[in-house]
Amino acid sequence: MSRVVKLAVIPGDGIGPEVVGEAVKVLDAVTADSGVTFEKTPFSLGAGRYLETGDTLTDDDLAAIASHDAILLGAVGGVPGDPRLKDANIERGLLLKLRFELDHYVNLRPSKLYPGATGPLAEPGEIDFVVVREGTEGPYVGNGGAIRRGTPHEVANETSVNTAYGVERVVRYAFALAERRRHKLTLVHKTNVLVHAGGMWKRIVDAVASEFPGVDVDYLHVDAATIFLVTNPGRFDVIVTDNLFGDILTDLAGAVTGGIGLAASGNINPDGAFPSMFEPVHGSAPDIAGSQKADPTAAILSVALLLDHLGLTDEAARVTRAVEDDIASRDGARTTAQIGDAIAARVQA
Amino acid sequence: MSRVVKLAVIPGDGIGPEVVGEAVKVLDAVTADSGVTFEKTPFSLGAGRYLETGDTLTDDDLAAIASHDAILLGAVGGVPGDPRLKDANIERGLLLKLRFELDHYVNLRPSKLYPGATGPLAEPGEIDFVVVREGTEGPYVGNGGAIRRGTPHEVANETSVNTAYGVERVVRYAFALAERRRHKLTLVHKTNVLVHAGGMWKRIVDAVASEFPGVDVDYLHVDAATIFLVTNPGRFDVIVTDNLFGDILTDLAGAVTGGIGLAASGNINPDGAFPSMFEPVHGSAPDIAGSQKADPTAAILSVALLLDHLGLTDEAARVTRAVEDDIASRDGARTTAQIGDAIAARVQA
Ligand SMILES: CC(C)[C@H](C(=O)O)[C@@H](O)C(=O)O
Ligand SMILES: CC(C)[C@H](C(=O)O)[C@@H](O)C(=O)O
Repeated sequence: MSRVVKLAVIPGDGIGPEVVGEAVKVLDAVTADSGVTFEKTPFSLGAGRYLETGDTLTDDDLAAIASHDAILLGAVGGVPGDPRLKDANIERGLLLKLRFELDHYVNLRPSKLYPGATGPLAEPGEIDFVVVREGTEGPYVGNGGAIRRGTPHEVANETSVNTAYGVERVVRYAFALAERRRHKLTLVHKTNVLVHAGGMWKRIVDAVASEFPGVDVDYLHVDAATIFLVTNPGRFDVIVTDNLFGDILTDLAGAVTGGIGLAASGNINPDGAFPSMFEPVHGSAPDIAGSQKADPTAAILSVALLLDHLGLTDEAARVTRAVEDDIASRDGARTTAQIGDAIAARVQA
Repeated sequence: MSRVVKLAVIPGDGIGPEVVGEAVKVLDAVTADSGVTFEKTPFSLGAGRYLETGDTLTDDDLAAIASHDAILLGAVGGVPGDPRLKDANIERGLLLKLRFELDHYVNLRPSKLYPGATGPLAEPGEIDFVVVREGTEGPYVGNGGAIRRGTPHEVANETSVNTAYGVERVVRYAFALAERRRHKLTLVHKTNVLVHAGGMWKRIVDAVASEFPGVDVDYLHVDAATIFLVTNPGRFDVIVTDNLFGDILTDLAGAVTGGIGLAASGNINPDGAFPSMFEPVHGSAPDIAGSQKADPTAAILSVALLLDHLGLTDEAARVTRAVEDDIASRDGARTTAQIGDAIAARVQA
């Protein structure tokens, strides 16, 4: 019996189309004889689309995307400082809108130092952890505003909104993940300053912990967590944290594990009410767009997360293994397509 | 003619008293024949005082401290998880209260990789930058609250408050500092998400930049800034940023430049309306308190910042040079007092 997966594909801007091209190549290769067909619908969204039409994400776009089983996204965002984008906020209007509207409350960001990958740390040791970043609350909710804008008396506020409902569901997900991994969960927040939000996160983690007696729990302030990420990243297994701290920690984590060119992510709605979305952590890097210099590995690893999410665990494992083998045997510069070809060849071998 | 400086000394908790002891030793040594006398008033504040009396910082304490010319602080905070401190928040009630009440709007945190110091980076290169962290606004204002606390319907908010007045004064300080250094200023924020606060910061930096045509300005999102701090810290000269981002970046910066044991800071009121406060970035580390394992270097470098702030630039330079020489000649473990003695001997040599 053959299964059909409806996949929305958003190549986006800059290097997005190039890396998505390679990711799709690998997806096709690994599913070639698997009985699963991915029906792909391309969506033209991002700075390019905005410059052409003035639209960022229309209700029709959103409804069409939501009718798919999953989403693969490259990267969105125009050239920094482009005056034509002055009034656009592609990140908020497109990327964050998708995460919020599709209730992607788990932003899953694994960090692994693959044999052969080189990072900036002198003695990295083994690094293999996952950040479970909350995706629909916190300082990202857009509940800010300003008065007396542009005057010497301007006041600009940003409100971080956090709910027990929203925190508990992501914390529960993180505990379940830790139980399937090395049984260690670290909450990262800033409870000594953000006493209300941080206090609630801490209480909820403590409460959920009692349902997962096999999982060791600890807590770090976000500032201390950045220190450990560079001095002892091996201490982490699963990190659960808020939307903004997760944003910061995962870029740092990407840097210490061989670069943001390897960092994959899933924006997941575990309930299945909405399609989940998989994307590399890196941005659209317009400065190198079209030059075949981008590393498609993060996009390809995002396909592995996508396959895993869809229950295609064998296929996911084949992609991951192919990437690992590819990284281990890297020498010399290759084009975006050469890396994609090499990994696609490995998944078929 | 002899000058008298009234110095409030807050040793605090954990390793605070040990490192402050060495810092005062070095201060006394460097001012021995200088015609400047430091009249020191000790203040017993911190978790210890709270446990004894229930007070964190009384109005009388505050008034007494405010009548001094400057403040030297060790570290405050009790043993994490101590049930007797459950309802105390020493950080908010003491440290942050001092910063806010004494209008320490510049939180100055230099990061330098000294020859001989070893950090976690494989190829650190030259690292010498200063973070100018805003100290009286942003997510630190304590404007948060919760409803339905402890129920499944709890909502906990935290509001970041930012004013043109507050941002402009710290931005201006940062530009003036960049002009005396390598003429480069990097604004770090998250303008694509925190559009109101970030937008105001960006506009104010752009406006003040026109008064400092010799300073190159660039902008980084906070997530990207963490990447550069580990992959290319040499790119930074002066970083200006908000209270929370500054907290995170300076711990990370401490880690990449040889450890938080070397990171000094000044909480400065440049207008001189209130005494400025100098403290190591590290915490009270109660686990190693009393064991003479703490490195007093950060506290001693905080004395250098204090001397510099008071216009005692020669003395400040002698302390910095003594620390540099000490770091360059380190081998083997030394006690807290041995490090302090060695540096004190060097400033007198
Ligand atoms: C582009 C930006 C809005 C986004 C975020 O802050 O979440 C990005 O940094 C990420 O981590 O996916
Ligand atoms: C103790 C804490 C409140 C403080 C802060 O967050 O500012 C500390 O981390 C620092 O950096 O001085």
